[in-house]
Amino acid sequence: MSSLVEVNVKFVAMDQNKSHIVLLSDKEDTKVLPIWIGPAEAQAIAMPMQGEFEARPLTHDLIKSCCDKLEGRIEKVVIKDISTEGTYYADIYLEQGGEIRVIDSRPSDAIALALRWDAPIFITMKLVEFTIDPDDVVFDKSDWEDLH
Amino acid sequence: MSSLVEVNVKFVAMDQNKSHIVLLSDKEDTKVLPIWIGPAEAQAIAMPMQGEFEARPLTHDLIKSCCDKLEGRIEKVVIKDISTEGTYYADIYLEQGGEIRVIDSRPSDAIALALRWDAPIFITMKLVEFTIDPDDVVFDKSDWEDLH
Repeated sequence: MSSLVEVNVKFVAMDQNKSHIVLLSDKEDTKVLPIWIGPAEAQAIAMPMQGEFEARPLTHDLIKSCCDKLEGRIEKVVIKDISTEGTYYADIYLEQGGEIRVIDSRPSDAIALALRWDAPIFITMKLVEFTIDPDDVVFDKSDWEDLH
Repeated sequence: MSSLVEVNVKFVAMDQNKSHIVLLSDKEDTKVLPIWIGPAEAQAIAMPMQGEFEARPLTHDLIKSCCDKLEGRIEKVVIKDISTEGTYYADIYLEQGGEIRVIDSRPSDAIALALRWDAPIFITMKLVEFTIDPDDVVFDKSDWEDLH
């Protein structure tokens, strides 16, 4: 496996086109990787970041419940690749009884789950090439509060 | 446990207010139980009904992948209750190595998962009281095609 860089979820917001975006930043907070995601996944990422939970379980909370009952836990997630069409790919590393299973996932789902297990999020060196300066991201912070 | 009635997913549509709705019908198709759901869950229910899948796994496909890897499977789902505020409650019966674990869920997630395992869906006798005549449901079938 190529070298991995650990990242944090910096925030979820909307860009100027009202599309949801999650920003991943390196530990030094010098570069960010923007990934466009769906509104449901944006909510699923924003809520645990704010320590909030719905009265009824969201779909990603249900994944946590299912894995807990089956004695599985997410060890880490790796956002590993991007296609020429701009589609990002992630792997979820699911541990059960000391064995690791790797599961194909959209990055938005992988990030939402990592936050529920407090599991580390990594990107591959290939994706480091797609990181940008935080100031180059244009987003509408006024909508941040509307995500939950 | 009180008696249960097995139901089918009749269809997913939009009502006159453009809210998504899933209609559950009894086997004789004489009564339906309408449940209002979110747009992401509507898509997650509509796609397997039509035998379609996205190129990338939807969140409910990811739940299936996680459970498969952890050797769990959904045996059945039961939509069991409705609160005075109109919130529906469901239980997912998750089997692993012959043991059943019961998991609290929103009905929309439970239905989306049942379709992925071809698992039966039940409602309790209490909810039978909330079923209505199919002709009393006003919905916009023209939007059906837009759900996926």
